[in-house]
Amino acid sequence: MLIVMNKKASPSEIDAVVSVIEAKGYTARPMPGGQRVAICVLHNPGPVEAGPFLSMPGVKEVIPVTHPYKLVSRESQPEDSVIDVGGVKIGNGHLVMIAGPCAIESEEQALTIAHKVKAAGAELFRGGAFKPRTSPYAFQGLGEEGLKILAKVRAETGMPVVTEAMDHDVFDLVEEYADVIQIGTRNMQNFSLLRRAGRARKPVVLKRGMAATIEEWLMAAEYIMEGGNSDVILCERGVRTFAHHSRNTLDLSAIPVVRKESHLPIIVDPSHAAGRRDQVIPLSRASVAVGCHGLMVEVHHQPEKALSDGAQSLYPEQFESLMQQIKPIFEIFRPLGNLD
Amino acid sequence: MLIVMNKKASPSEIDAVVSVIEAKGYTARPMPGGQRVAICVLHNPGPVEAGPFLSMPGVKEVIPVTHPYKLVSRESQPEDSVIDVGGVKIGNGHLVMIAGPCAIESEEQALTIAHKVKAAGAELFRGGAFKPRTSPYAFQGLGEEGLKILAKVRAETGMPVVTEAMDHDVFDLVEEYADVIQIGTRNMQNFSLLRRAGRARKPVVLKRGMAATIEEWLMAAEYIMEGGNSDVILCERGVRTFAHHSRNTLDLSAIPVVRKESHLPIIVDPSHAAGRRDQVIPLSRASVAVGCHGLMVEVHHQPEKALSDGAQSLYPEQFESLMQQIKPIFEIFRPLGNLD
Amino acid sequence: MLIVMNKKASPSEIDAVVSVIEAKGYTARPMPGGQRVAICVLHNPGPVEAGPFLSMPGVKEVIPVTHPYKLVSRESQPEDSVIDVGGVKIGNGHLVMIAGPCAIESEEQALTIAHKVKAAGAELFRGGAFKPRTSPYAFQGLGEEGLKILAKVRAETGMPVVTEAMDHDVFDLVEEYADVIQIGTRNMQNFSLLRRAGRARKPVVLKRGMAATIEEWLMAAEYIMEGGNSDVILCERGVRTFAHHSRNTLDLSAIPVVRKESHLPIIVDPSHAAGRRDQVIPLSRASVAVGCHGLMVEVHHQPEKALSDGAQSLYPEQFESLMQQIKPIFEIFRPLGNLD
Amino acid sequence: MLIVMNKKASPSEIDAVVSVIEAKGYTARPMPGGQRVAICVLHNPGPVEAGPFLSMPGVKEVIPVTHPYKLVSRESQPEDSVIDVGGVKIGNGHLVMIAGPCAIESEEQALTIAHKVKAAGAELFRGGAFKPRTSPYAFQGLGEEGLKILAKVRAETGMPVVTEAMDHDVFDLVEEYADVIQIGTRNMQNFSLLRRAGRARKPVVLKRGMAATIEEWLMAAEYIMEGGNSDVILCERGVRTFAHHSRNTLDLSAIPVVRKESHLPIIVDPSHAAGRRDQVIPLSRASVAVGCHGLMVEVHHQPEKALSDGAQSLYPEQFESLMQQIKPIFEIFRPLGNLD
Repeated sequence: MLIVMNKKASPSEIDAVVSVIEAKGYTARPMPGGQRVAICVLHNPGPVEAGPFLSMPGVKEVIPVTHPYKLVSRESQPEDSVIDVGGVKIGNGHLVMIAGPCAIESEEQALTIAHKVKAAGAELFRGGAFKPRTSPYAFQGLGEEGLKILAKVRAETGMPVVTEAMDHDVFDLVEEYADVIQIGTRNMQNFSLLRRAGRARKPVVLKRGMAATIEEWLMAAEYIMEGGNSDVILCERGVRTFAHHSRNTLDLSAIPVVRKESHLPIIVDPSHAAGRRDQVIPLSRASVAVGCHGLMVEVHHQPEKALSDGAQSLYPEQFESLMQQIKPIFEIFRPLGNLD
Repeated sequence: MLIVMNKKASPSEIDAVVSVIEAKGYTARPMPGGQRVAICVLHNPGPVEAGPFLSMPGVKEVIPVTHPYKLVSRESQPEDSVIDVGGVKIGNGHLVMIAGPCAIESEEQALTIAHKVKAAGAELFRGGAFKPRTSPYAFQGLGEEGLKILAKVRAETGMPVVTEAMDHDVFDLVEEYADVIQIGTRNMQNFSLLRRAGRARKPVVLKRGMAATIEEWLMAAEYIMEGGNSDVILCERGVRTFAHHSRNTLDLSAIPVVRKESHLPIIVDPSHAAGRRDQVIPLSRASVAVGCHGLMVEVHHQPEKALSDGAQSLYPEQFESLMQQIKPIFEIFRPLGNLD
Repeated sequence: MLIVMNKKASPSEIDAVVSVIEAKGYTARPMPGGQRVAICVLHNPGPVEAGPFLSMPGVKEVIPVTHPYKLVSRESQPEDSVIDVGGVKIGNGHLVMIAGPCAIESEEQALTIAHKVKAAGAELFRGGAFKPRTSPYAFQGLGEEGLKILAKVRAETGMPVVTEAMDHDVFDLVEEYADVIQIGTRNMQNFSLLRRAGRARKPVVLKRGMAATIEEWLMAAEYIMEGGNSDVILCERGVRTFAHHSRNTLDLSAIPVVRKESHLPIIVDPSHAAGRRDQVIPLSRASVAVGCHGLMVEVHHQPEKALSDGAQSLYPEQFESLMQQIKPIFEIFRPLGNLD
Repeated sequence: MLIVMNKKASPSEIDAVVSVIEAKGYTARPMPGGQRVAICVLHNPGPVEAGPFLSMPGVKEVIPVTHPYKLVSRESQPEDSVIDVGGVKIGNGHLVMIAGPCAIESEEQALTIAHKVKAAGAELFRGGAFKPRTSPYAFQGLGEEGLKILAKVRAETGMPVVTEAMDHDVFDLVEEYADVIQIGTRNMQNFSLLRRAGRARKPVVLKRGMAATIEEWLMAAEYIMEGGNSDVILCERGVRTFAHHSRNTLDLSAIPVVRKESHLPIIVDPSHAAGRRDQVIPLSRASVAVGCHGLMVEVHHQPEKALSDGAQSLYPEQFESLMQQIKPIFEIFRPLGNLD
């Protein structure tokens, strides 16, 4: 941490800051610059709270230096994590395709879509049984019935299944049925749910919050890892900006930044970023080209009848086309290795 | 809803849209404009999903008309709601001051601050017992011990107390001790928690999410009201923008907009918006002047020793000054009545 | 500047950074922390470019410390600037009201509105002769004819007039007619226009750019001051965010921040922030309460016939009501002095 | 346009709106819905201003339907525009690479870089002679001397050159020397400059404004086309958001949206979006994969000595690697044709 003093800060104001630093057991080193003094804080074992210093007379600014995450950091584990889901590898050197409808609506719907996406090359099946909805009057998902349908899809197709655990109440149930548990964007900082996910014995997909910085997102993953679950898959899904031609603005620079900062695999959900079908394939190509470890894509055979998010679901034949487009892009990218 | 067709949409594409509308039991009325056709959807009892139409050939855009909220809407209840908390009125014609530390740290700390803010004119006491923290390594609050201290503050000072219920697990406990239950900004779309709050027998302060539109915020309140609890107090606390001179950007235009759309009372938390002590008093004055029903302000007698958010906590004497500044502003505003 | 090294940066990487710093004539002081080394740059006369360091091996981050503005800074001039416009003071201890239509449409329109706003207490008259419009097909203003009408308004009412100079071509003309020259939000970083404004002999209102940080805004003012014109009035008018219930999000925390960093007066334009008439009065009250030095408000006697921005223009009787509401708020604020 | 009335709007309020519409020569068609009336405006030749209606009693909302752009619209020209720059095609079926330093610093610097990027496959050379800088104290470019160096680069290498015209004053000079004239992000709504560009006889690269919607950007292009210059190349360069791990957030969904709405070619500048060298190659791959018509990339052989933006400039060998990575991606994309 660096504490920047006002140009006219008095020696006694500087001394007072030094005393507070030393009272915490750290080392303070004042640096007289051309125009003002800055005080470096040294030998602090972790991040230091800026608050106490900001309130002291003569202090202009407090600049943090250390990032607060540990377990998720590439500095703590230099090599990429690779997560195994029923034999499917997620991470370094493999591109995982997760596909399926936004919500499970019926056994027939789920199986129809599952067979089609599997044939096109998807390895994991996704589908919501419990749906977070902006309106209390909207379709909320089939609940446990939906989970049972997911189990049937797995039994019939051999594909592991991904589904969201919206809250604590249903976490046990979801953990029992699902192969990968999703924490949704609105729950990225639901810290109790993150702690529960830390105790889960299944991998977790952690979606980025709508307005989350990368540091906050990695800290949310840190909650899960700190709880004992190292199998965290990050998922970029767009952030909220002034732009409204897509539902969210897909932040693809997050991929190289996360891959530099963390060893965790990172996938992209272009469907929720776009919110419109006609942007999904271009954004999928871009996501693979930027260097993500996989995609999670919504597919529906009858999107005009879908009970949620129909506008962004691909038709199965579009998903097939998507697969044909991204495979060669990934083949170009694969030999480039981890980071460039 | 209005469905706008491409300039070159064919008659059969238009007919197909009309058929889908009519199959849902609504009325479709095509409107031939100068350059293109738009189709109005009529006699729909509630909002219509845009998705199915966006995926049809010839459709350029779908424009929703009806807002999806009902119970929170001023169209459903024209007069202001007034909420009674142990004799303190929140709503039309009264300005409520809620003050206290970010987190309850000890009985002595809580009581010291409580006596001071009460003397300065605060009517409700706030303090966190369970704290949502970005880092799993940061101070997480005293838990039930903190709730007991809050009860003691109420007993000694007569002030009703406000505290956050971070999750389902602690909701019962918080409901037992608190007079007003706070739902935090990160939980604004934690729909299970909102449903639980809908069953609570205590008023709820619902903070705006960091990147929530007013419609999403009112829909979150709708979840609570729809569950049976009409005592919802909205709390604006700043939104995330590109600007970083304050922690969040306080969105004061939300106050007149919410007061026009909804009958619910709306208060402002200038402390979390600012994130820095020196902006809190000016933003408090602005909030009262814009027409809010109250303020929730962080106060600490030793902010440099606070276990969280010390940088934004006012000293008790600053809180006293704040009270003296806002009272006459509110007196000017009060006779202006509800809306201008 | 502080250069933060990777945890595993080698001594030779650290030495290389030190050499580059010293080759620039500054002092480098490496600070060995618990986990990593940070290198302080000292004795640099102004800000140091981060770029060269970011590209060196072993460097994790570069953190700037010094703000780049000088003349606009309160550190260079501690007391508030007060600008005199034909006898009207703008700055410390005075609240200036600037009112008038978005665009000058005719002599009759301008004079009608001018008499009304003057009667209500406005001291300066505003009105656009040259209008920046998103569409090339929209009304672009009356041009020089509009400036002549402004001169007539001044002659008849005694009010100094404010109008925008959209570009270099018309700057001479605007400077000849106007008492205060406005630089619009889209031109905040039109550096040639800023340099021209630096040579002007009339005060300049500098609107904040739609997505400008406070540092960029103050740097734009620095361009004008550096050119020789010290009479700069800053004008907050809302920034672009994800929120769309107002046209822009008025950033009132900018007022205390600017007043702390700079000695220049700062006014608020609530009309362009709101974009809707019904938010203008509440936001005006808030702006005065937060501590601005004045307001610039759009008023039109027939807004439904206005050639631009009618939706946000107040009726003259609303402006009168606004004046009655803000005066007592300012009286409360005035004795609080400059900063709190 | 659709004018939505309040639930309780009276028949006379509805009639008043109808009268205003008809007074403008359009057709009004009131649509009685289940709960409220909406009034469609028909037979309007272009967009209708919302303002006048918003101010009428009983009106809740005004919803525009028609986009205001004409010449840039794909509805006015269905096939892709292809722009010829000295034999290099920009547009449909060709990927153009524009590379060079941020600023021209010397003849030796420019020629060194030009030879290297040409060898790697660049077709156009870029370099700033006049530089828009946030600070008046920063390096402002070599001016006409820089333009002469660009002419020399063209003479020696055969590459057409792209450079920015920052203002009206230098436009003639830039037009004389450059093959493509750049309008920078801060000037996207400098309408006088856009009009001047409309009279230019050289193609124009129009960068997206920092916080511009796609509609505003296309309207800026409309200014140029309306002035008589059809050779406009749009350039996405990132927008300002809350996220700060990249200098701007590259908005790649803009590419498919612009390609659907407009026939103009669109390229991407990953260097200014990223602001950091290590994100440039991944974002370049993503831009090509999403479907842009070209890239504009900053390259410097000694970035640690660059006079501006060194941190984001690629080393020549990195540019070579970039070329090798994107070519096969484009080959995959090319047969997919214009839109998917």
